[in-house]
Amino acid sequence: MAPVLILMGSQSDWPVMQHAAQMLKDLGVEWRAEVVSAHRTPDLLQSSMAQAEQDGVPVVIAGAGGAAHLPGMLAAYTAIPVLGVPVPSKQLKGLDSLLSIVQMPKGVAVGTLAIGQAGAANAGLLAAQIIGTTDATVRERVQAFRKAQREKVMNGPKLELPEA
Amino acid sequence: MAPVLILMGSQSDWPVMQHAAQMLKDLGVEWRAEVVSAHRTPDLLQSSMAQAEQDGVPVVIAGAGGAAHLPGMLAAYTAIPVLGVPVPSKQLKGLDSLLSIVQMPKGVAVGTLAIGQAGAANAGLLAAQIIGTTDATVRERVQAFRKAQREKVMNGPKLELPEA
Amino acid sequence: MAPVLILMGSQSDWPVMQHAAQMLKDLGVEWRAEVVSAHRTPDLLQSSMAQAEQDGVPVVIAGAGGAAHLPGMLAAYTAIPVLGVPVPSKQLKGLDSLLSIVQMPKGVAVGTLAIGQAGAANAGLLAAQIIGTTDATVRERVQAFRKAQREKVMNGPKLELPEA
Amino acid sequence: MAPVLILMGSQSDWPVMQHAAQMLKDLGVEWRAEVVSAHRTPDLLQSSMAQAEQDGVPVVIAGAGGAAHLPGMLAAYTAIPVLGVPVPSKQLKGLDSLLSIVQMPKGVAVGTLAIGQAGAANAGLLAAQIIGTTDATVRERVQAFRKAQREKVMNGPKLELPEA
Amino acid sequence: MAPVLILMGSQSDWPVMQHAAQMLKDLGVEWRAEVVSAHRTPDLLQSSMAQAEQDGVPVVIAGAGGAAHLPGMLAAYTAIPVLGVPVPSKQLKGLDSLLSIVQMPKGVAVGTLAIGQAGAANAGLLAAQIIGTTDATVRERVQAFRKAQREKVMNGPKLELPEA
Amino acid sequence: MAPVLILMGSQSDWPVMQHAAQMLKDLGVEWRAEVVSAHRTPDLLQSSMAQAEQDGVPVVIAGAGGAAHLPGMLAAYTAIPVLGVPVPSKQLKGLDSLLSIVQMPKGVAVGTLAIGQAGAANAGLLAAQIIGTTDATVRERVQAFRKAQREKVMNGPKLELPEA
Amino acid sequence: MAPVLILMGSQSDWPVMQHAAQMLKDLGVEWRAEVVSAHRTPDLLQSSMAQAEQDGVPVVIAGAGGAAHLPGMLAAYTAIPVLGVPVPSKQLKGLDSLLSIVQMPKGVAVGTLAIGQAGAANAGLLAAQIIGTTDATVRERVQAFRKAQREKVMNGPKLELPEA
Amino acid sequence: MAPVLILMGSQSDWPVMQHAAQMLKDLGVEWRAEVVSAHRTPDLLQSSMAQAEQDGVPVVIAGAGGAAHLPGMLAAYTAIPVLGVPVPSKQLKGLDSLLSIVQMPKGVAVGTLAIGQAGAANAGLLAAQIIGTTDATVRERVQAFRKAQREKVMNGPKLELPEA
Repeated sequence: MAPVLILMGSQSDWPVMQHAAQMLKDLGVEWRAEVVSAHRTPDLLQSSMAQAEQDGVPVVIAGAGGAAHLPGMLAAYTAIPVLGVPVPSKQLKGLDSLLSIVQMPKGVAVGTLAIGQAGAANAGLLAAQIIGTTDATVRERVQAFRKAQREKVMNGPKLELPEA
Repeated sequence: MAPVLILMGSQSDWPVMQHAAQMLKDLGVEWRAEVVSAHRTPDLLQSSMAQAEQDGVPVVIAGAGGAAHLPGMLAAYTAIPVLGVPVPSKQLKGLDSLLSIVQMPKGVAVGTLAIGQAGAANAGLLAAQIIGTTDATVRERVQAFRKAQREKVMNGPKLELPEA
Repeated sequence: MAPVLILMGSQSDWPVMQHAAQMLKDLGVEWRAEVVSAHRTPDLLQSSMAQAEQDGVPVVIAGAGGAAHLPGMLAAYTAIPVLGVPVPSKQLKGLDSLLSIVQMPKGVAVGTLAIGQAGAANAGLLAAQIIGTTDATVRERVQAFRKAQREKVMNGPKLELPEA
Repeated sequence: MAPVLILMGSQSDWPVMQHAAQMLKDLGVEWRAEVVSAHRTPDLLQSSMAQAEQDGVPVVIAGAGGAAHLPGMLAAYTAIPVLGVPVPSKQLKGLDSLLSIVQMPKGVAVGTLAIGQAGAANAGLLAAQIIGTTDATVRERVQAFRKAQREKVMNGPKLELPEA
Repeated sequence: MAPVLILMGSQSDWPVMQHAAQMLKDLGVEWRAEVVSAHRTPDLLQSSMAQAEQDGVPVVIAGAGGAAHLPGMLAAYTAIPVLGVPVPSKQLKGLDSLLSIVQMPKGVAVGTLAIGQAGAANAGLLAAQIIGTTDATVRERVQAFRKAQREKVMNGPKLELPEA
Repeated sequence: MAPVLILMGSQSDWPVMQHAAQMLKDLGVEWRAEVVSAHRTPDLLQSSMAQAEQDGVPVVIAGAGGAAHLPGMLAAYTAIPVLGVPVPSKQLKGLDSLLSIVQMPKGVAVGTLAIGQAGAANAGLLAAQIIGTTDATVRERVQAFRKAQREKVMNGPKLELPEA
Repeated sequence: MAPVLILMGSQSDWPVMQHAAQMLKDLGVEWRAEVVSAHRTPDLLQSSMAQAEQDGVPVVIAGAGGAAHLPGMLAAYTAIPVLGVPVPSKQLKGLDSLLSIVQMPKGVAVGTLAIGQAGAANAGLLAAQIIGTTDATVRERVQAFRKAQREKVMNGPKLELPEA
Repeated sequence: MAPVLILMGSQSDWPVMQHAAQMLKDLGVEWRAEVVSAHRTPDLLQSSMAQAEQDGVPVVIAGAGGAAHLPGMLAAYTAIPVLGVPVPSKQLKGLDSLLSIVQMPKGVAVGTLAIGQAGAANAGLLAAQIIGTTDATVRERVQAFRKAQREKVMNGPKLELPEA
């Protein structure tokens, strides 16, 4: 299987989007990350999705901020499932990114995750879950990850008030 | 393959959520719809997901409005990919539903679609795309759907000003 | 000079966008309107802008609603000035459309107008003002339009309380 | 009487939620705090509430951030009054937490307090007021607290402009 | 025990607030409803709360819209638990009401419910839960109500697509 | 004439509210500032306004944050004009303060200024303008202030790009 | 004394703004209403304020919607107190109008009232309160109005549940 | 051709607005920047636009924050195309600035760019595009700028996870 493709609108999105890569790595899923800007390299949208289809990429993860058009435009060019990550914007804190990604019209879908790092990590997780629908090994790794985080919660330190 | 499972928090969500069912039907994908309320039947969350895993359900679509906890709670109980549809709320028009569904913390993911009918239809479409990652027949139906909607745009009527 | 090009994401945007056409017509500026969907006909974005450049289109007006990507994507493919009109969306009333259009990253610009019919009319007006920067006839028509609306304000009826 | 139960979705919520514990301590009400994640330990929701009912817990205080499902899910599993505290989220500053907690559908109620530390302290205060409806000692402590804060306001320093 | 006191800022809030009364009635809890305006009858705030304390009112439910000061001001005058219901406002749909009620400063608490009818009904329910902390009969009625609504969900009609 | 009365909900509002005092001082208008909390000292609301009426206070300026009830409650107790200043809140940046102050129901009015320091200064300015409606000396000082700030704008430094 | 001057950006604002006139009339204060558009008749702003100063207008009430510049621009041209009324806009329901009016920078103040009819009526009331600072007759009428609305609240009908 | 005129409401807007100047300089377009405050120097609005028309200024760029009236008021006084830049405000992060600029009524248009530095830079770019509609040299510089930023994206560094 080809690696999950992680695309983002700008080099500066990588500190957020690397959490998708890290999650995939932790779950033993191959990934590849590239900058493709909907606005600055629009001619690459179609060709990158054509290449992805040819390579057999199972899931595309796309992150962008502000007027965040990348996830929706990639989804317009492919039948591969596209997951969108709203990257926080400087002034509006990613509310603009979220609405620009999630409010797609009927007929072209983007599965949108939370704003910022948690959303990027969860895009990696959901990509693994999608792969896990037909790949038992990945599915088991997801289940193990879930079990581990459950145990981490249960074994946390006791909650106490600070000394007065 | 088991049908895609469409769950919603209330009978009253069906006019929105049936657009997911209709899209799946149009794409030749089996579906099953039920009401499971995160708040009124919380004990069913775990068992319905356990049953879904046992049945081999490939994707869960969950819709809810207001403090919309259903999609996230289902995702907490399964490794099956969960897609969330924010059902419009009476006063805040689904902004509350959207934030309640999409802003999941790291570790449990919901792929969120647009508020309302378009989002429900796109949840059906994205479910088909996910199935299509390993099922060529469904993938081709998605591509045909895309092609058909492209042609519909291109063959629309001429745009003219109304007679003065 | 080629007509101003009015593009919109969907046939259903025409009741809003026709106000741009009407304003242009009132100001004696040629226009042409078409549906080009960023999501359903993405392959037409580049070719329509290439054609527009070849035709000598002076200004592009683009309207779209929800995750409104059309104006920004057209701007990505051309150096012709692009004006964006946020079409009201069903639930969020065009706030999503506005943010999706106006919050463009540095390097690709969309001059954005108000949500809805007033914004569409003003897109037509601003297009005429742009043409008027080098076309004295159009500039004078804009000035005459301004003068006429000033007089309309000044000659309005007297404001009186309704009979008790 | 059993201690008031303070639950939160994550260890990282404690700096906010400890203000509930501190208020209860100041009012002489017993408390116990634990991490129970709606998403990472969903199977504990039902059992923790069953245990609380058996123990005779008078009030449950629950804090969570983002898609904050914990208070509503606990309320779904018990008839004990549940008070919810929206923990500030990184990007949306707790507006998402607030809407996710307060906008509960008819039939399952969460008494919601303000976003952040003030809300956590007030959850402790309101819990004491609830206990005070049948416990005169606690009620008197609440009244004394109110009187003390009234006096603190009245004995504040004189308000003067800084030296120029 | 004295009846639960339901107060509202205006006669026009009754169509919303009567859902609190109805829920209390359904749960066999006595109630009394009155109009007390924080702004038009401010001198009644203190006396109405003094009377309520003297009467032994267990819970106060207060609804108001817009700059909704009633719940917070009542809470300032009493140690009885106060539950607040944001009544929808004409233009901002109750977002202003919600923030005016829930964002109380540390030291005076209002347990806030959802905007509108669902919130009013849940205020009645939460009041009954509070009474139920020491009144087994009411607690059992709450549990029966919960069970009944659970069964209503489970016995709903089958969800089917409309005939084409 | 009695001094303008500047009231605020908390000592911690003084760094914002002192800008009202400073503006009044700059315009040669007497002022007096005190902390009166709508929630912590509600019994002082009525008496402070009765005293103000007796003293002949011309304008009351009131600042508060979050669920900001002080300006509206003071207005409920007096016919003296009340100006409201939304003090920025920690999480919602004063949007809650603004809506809680400005959205008053018909019959009790608060003239609301901008969020934060600019609003506080302008409350001082507007108070002086109100006094200036019948006091020519103050009116002239307002006009002189306006003229001075006009000149400050016109004599600003040249705007140049920083050295590369 | 000259009449209170009520200005609005458009004829279509009169159904909202007439509530200011009605309130003034009810309080026995003279008024005059005119349409002056900040955008369509900008040259009238300065002259209308110069005339108002010459006439001795005590207060200006200005209403506008959307990008509502009228109140702030009038305030820029005069030292007469200006009260602003946000007229509801079609899509954003007056939130844009409110922010455009209230968020004035330091140095030019607008006392802003609530969105819509209640705000217009309160602008009339506040204008009367301002006049009442030096006019005992008007002050007494305001006090009588307050007393009447207090009594209306107290003599309202009994609140009862509808027959089942 | 006269320089593009960059106006702003305050000296303190220059750190944002200089990005417009820098972009124009990079594209070889002359510019001139000045402070003109809609509120503090309202009498300069009309004369500055009259002068600009006489000088043959092709485009006006106007930036302002909060209740940002400058762009709309300039547009009211001229037929030259006006581009508006919402300068971030301290509390509301420029959402107020954006709505105050973009929501213009029918008949007076402002082409609005994104909040902050990116919007300022894009105002410069769009001004150059407008000039480029009839000036081939400028149009080619815009195209070269676009090509250069495309190449910068394509030649970015490889995206890699940080060392563990």
